[in-house]
Amino acid sequence: MKTHRGLWRYLVGEPLPTSAFAEERLTNTAALAVLSSDALSSVAYATEEILLVLVLAGGGALGLSLPIALGIALLLAIIALSYRQTIRAYPSGGGAYTVARENLGIYPGLIAAASLMIDYILTVTVSVSAGIAALTSAVPALQPFVVELCLLLVFLLMLANLRGLRSSGQLFSIPTYAFIVTIFGLIIWGIFRQATGQITVIPVTVTQTPISLFLLCRAFAAGCTALTGVEAISNGVMVFKSPEWQNARRTLGYMVGILTAMFLGITYLAHVYQIVPESGQTVLSLLGRSIFGNGIFYYFLQITTLLILMLAANTSFADFPRLSYFLARDRFLPRQLLLLGDRLVYSNGIILLSATAAILIVIFRGQTNAIIPLYAVGVFTSFSLSQAGMVRHWFKDKTGGWLLSTVINGIGAIMTTLVLMVIVATKFKQGAWIVVLAIPAVVYLFLSINRHYRIVRERLSIDGMELNRSRTQIQTNSTTPAIVLVGQLHRGTVEALEYARSIASQIVAIHVDIGDTDKTNLLQQWQELEADIPLIILDSPYRSVVKPMSEFVADFEARHPETFTTVIIPVFMTRHWWEDFLHNQTALFVRAALRNKRSRVISSVRYYL
Amino acid sequence: MKTHRGLWRYLVGEPLPTSAFAEERLTNTAALAVLSSDALSSVAYATEEILLVLVLAGGGALGLSLPIALGIALLLAIIALSYRQTIRAYPSGGGAYTVARENLGIYPGLIAAASLMIDYILTVTVSVSAGIAALTSAVPALQPFVVELCLLLVFLLMLANLRGLRSSGQLFSIPTYAFIVTIFGLIIWGIFRQATGQITVIPVTVTQTPISLFLLCRAFAAGCTALTGVEAISNGVMVFKSPEWQNARRTLGYMVGILTAMFLGITYLAHVYQIVPESGQTVLSLLGRSIFGNGIFYYFLQITTLLILMLAANTSFADFPRLSYFLARDRFLPRQLLLLGDRLVYSNGIILLSATAAILIVIFRGQTNAIIPLYAVGVFTSFSLSQAGMVRHWFKDKTGGWLLSTVINGIGAIMTTLVLMVIVATKFKQGAWIVVLAIPAVVYLFLSINRHYRIVRERLSIDGMELNRSRTQIQTNSTTPAIVLVGQLHRGTVEALEYARSIASQIVAIHVDIGDTDKTNLLQQWQELEADIPLIILDSPYRSVVKPMSEFVADFEARHPETFTTVIIPVFMTRHWWEDFLHNQTALFVRAALRNKRSRVISSVRYYL
Repeated sequence: MKTHRGLWRYLVGEPLPTSAFAEERLTNTAALAVLSSDALSSVAYATEEILLVLVLAGGGALGLSLPIALGIALLLAIIALSYRQTIRAYPSGGGAYTVARENLGIYPGLIAAASLMIDYILTVTVSVSAGIAALTSAVPALQPFVVELCLLLVFLLMLANLRGLRSSGQLFSIPTYAFIVTIFGLIIWGIFRQATGQITVIPVTVTQTPISLFLLCRAFAAGCTALTGVEAISNGVMVFKSPEWQNARRTLGYMVGILTAMFLGITYLAHVYQIVPESGQTVLSLLGRSIFGNGIFYYFLQITTLLILMLAANTSFADFPRLSYFLARDRFLPRQLLLLGDRLVYSNGIILLSATAAILIVIFRGQTNAIIPLYAVGVFTSFSLSQAGMVRHWFKDKTGGWLLSTVINGIGAIMTTLVLMVIVATKFKQGAWIVVLAIPAVVYLFLSINRHYRIVRERLSIDGMELNRSRTQIQTNSTTPAIVLVGQLHRGTVEALEYARSIASQIVAIHVDIGDTDKTNLLQQWQELEADIPLIILDSPYRSVVKPMSEFVADFEARHPETFTTVIIPVFMTRHWWEDFLHNQTALFVRAALRNKRSRVISSVRYYL
Repeated sequence: MKTHRGLWRYLVGEPLPTSAFAEERLTNTAALAVLSSDALSSVAYATEEILLVLVLAGGGALGLSLPIALGIALLLAIIALSYRQTIRAYPSGGGAYTVARENLGIYPGLIAAASLMIDYILTVTVSVSAGIAALTSAVPALQPFVVELCLLLVFLLMLANLRGLRSSGQLFSIPTYAFIVTIFGLIIWGIFRQATGQITVIPVTVTQTPISLFLLCRAFAAGCTALTGVEAISNGVMVFKSPEWQNARRTLGYMVGILTAMFLGITYLAHVYQIVPESGQTVLSLLGRSIFGNGIFYYFLQITTLLILMLAANTSFADFPRLSYFLARDRFLPRQLLLLGDRLVYSNGIILLSATAAILIVIFRGQTNAIIPLYAVGVFTSFSLSQAGMVRHWFKDKTGGWLLSTVINGIGAIMTTLVLMVIVATKFKQGAWIVVLAIPAVVYLFLSINRHYRIVRERLSIDGMELNRSRTQIQTNSTTPAIVLVGQLHRGTVEALEYARSIASQIVAIHVDIGDTDKTNLLQQWQELEADIPLIILDSPYRSVVKPMSEFVADFEARHPETFTTVIIPVFMTRHWWEDFLHNQTALFVRAALRNKRSRVISSVRYYL
């Protein structure tokens, strides 16, 4: 037990006090690096996804990749314009959950939230798989260890984030800009070699090979993975320096420009250099080898690709726990996701994300192509709901230029909805059905959790308890002292205090404040209801409930060595065992901690809901 | 929770009272069926194992299978003679653990026990895999589901044994005798076809192909799997009718005769019919097809093979839990293995066996050939220790004819030890190393468990507690009643009673007798130490501790609705969390049961070791 704990502390680091919590503001250059890795990194696989579909119609159809890429670039422009409106309207960050919930109501909000959560998990899965594909393309000997390498990467990302890797501008700028420079280098050198006649030029013409409309749509849908992550800047407006929304808009513009250039450039060159997808090599790797040869530049390309994809995966490690926190705060997810861990990060969200991503990696054997069909559904569902929410927003809030904004967001909403339909229709069998089923399932889970918390709150509420009710008299004859552990003052606590009075002469109640207790309110309620028992509030700068409690108990017991000190823990009993997962189970951890302190008597006073 | 429990009850059956426990005596014919399935079924794979080694030296070496089989038959005769002596000396059953422990001491006994446990697990694994191989040989379409089919078979065996499948003579006779008849039919028909010139006769000569001594020894070692299960009759002497040992000896003679004839017959015909091992088909299946053609006789052969192999696997489901019980009784295994389950079987042993066999099946992908190299090590270790123990036995107990018996057992011990060495040397790399490491590891586990229980017993012992020590006075002023749950009267219980006195006015202690309580002793100790508190002993004919306890508590609480009844559970705290697995954790189950009864106050009084 102890050695495990030691290793864990070594990996994750010592606890940090709550006072160390702070947010960093970023320059536009740094913000571009932090917020756009997800979007920019998608050029590592988007072209390949288009080609993989077209190749089904024969090699001649590969030339269609260019018009498809142009269509996707147009769609990107529309979406970016749309998000410019969101940035203006939500300077404190307009995530799809917030926008949809505020403007469209609770159900669309939850659908957006479910889509986003799935999307974040898939971002990790896809980015890590694509990163490892870049690695194994360069070092084929690693091919048999794809799954293990992917899992290792997820584990490292988890550890880094549990330690509290801040979205540090400097740290992120290097790989992002290195990737941008390398890709532009690739494109420029590729075009230069073509222009100087070093390769046979293929005229860019749409091939005459007959191709079904379905396959064409499917290729388009596959390429839409290039658009994932575009919304990041509109979610993160608050990290920009003042004037936030203007800086965010400008950065969005740069990002879209760079993304468009890279995506079109790669797709164009893949055509010119006659790249045909093959297994064991990514299209970008094949293109790199064709243009750079097998030298240092090629390896640099693969390494920067791996690094930016790791950054892309890492963005989910910031976004997923944050969204989980919002949902838990609104009581749609377990309250454990509200807890700020030892290192001031939402550890439980990080672990949940890592675990689900790891499971998907194992199921899909770390194959990017297998996971991609699941990816775009969540992304475009949240795009559509977010844009539709914005349309409603402008109708309610008719500030300057609202009509133009309405039109732009309206076009955005219609386009993204259409694309969503195309994606679902064309990729349904390849795996999109999983997400189509998963989104309502997750929404149902949100609603069930919410209902549970509502019922618990109602049943435990002390509203309506008489102030001067008849309390049990404290057992003045008893020689036994008792300590009552108090989380909140609810009906279960009241019961536990009653029991304490019935067995003990000296009673003390303790409460631990991890920084979120409304002390005034608690003390006032206490005076009204339980004035005969002293309440001690312990501060906990490192946000541990268990440690101060168990230390207090150990001290108390040391001061009363001759008698049995009864430690009384109020617990409320849920109706089903699985509902216990929705509560903190502080009682369990306290019992375990008191084992180390060698406490002798621990009494649970159970309150049945 | 409830539906799970309902399904489980449906599969396993309603609980049986302890009074229904009884043993059946068998006729020799029935006993042969019950006790020899393990030994006889090994002809399904033993010849194949020899051929698989010889084929490495080229097809010409396959003829060597005959002299090797003759050598193994000779070894079988020696071992059988040896076990005839054991039967006489141990009419109540002379398992290797008993014989080695009584005559050679504790360590050889534990080595024998470890070998046997591993052997039983491997019997399940090998028999189930070989049974499914018989099935997939006949129905190749099932080939891709080998692992799933094996796991299904283990699960069915587990369920049948958890229900309490008795070693019913009738049930077992049909497949065993059907198998014997089918194999003899195969041999006779095969020889008839050869004699009538329906096939090209190959002269039985030892081939001149050069073969290394190592490979020859390895082939011999591989064939020794034919001898597994021979000891079963000497372990089960007590199931025979009177005069037990004479009946057992006679049955052993029949079994050895049948086994020798079948093994030699199959090996001879495999040579005559030029069977070469191939993947996807067992040798017996190939032989069956050659002799019977693809008709009904062939399918009958495969089905009876599958059935007798299931019976063979089933014998471990009786032996393993019984050996676990003995080891747990001697405190070398967790005490949970002592508990007689709902259906009067040692459920925990059955589940442990199923789980470990299932894990091995998954690891070795259900491939008989991959598991066999592990198999014979444990078998021959226990053979050797058991025979060596018999030699010591005769020296100590010089009854009539002891000298001859000594010589026979001595030869047996030397031969089996030599074979063991050959097996370890030739199959070490193929997997025997696993068992060579596992046996000492299991012995170490036995010893650690034993040490733990000894320490706990010493620390908790009430020996030396003063009879007239100063007890706390019962709190006559208190209005709170308390119930103390008592397992045994140890220091932890004494503490809990002290605590009860310090908080409660009305105290009652309850103890549940599941059939193994020494009531006189308990009541006497109670009178000496705790006379001021009444002790109620509840009978539990269905051997549940939790049910009578929780019902008593619920009744008591119903009679005292106005106050908090404190349910006091004495728990002793082990030094390491993993040591908890060595104790019954009744406290946990009682807490869960009291949740259903809606008990309000549950106090643990902890005693730290």
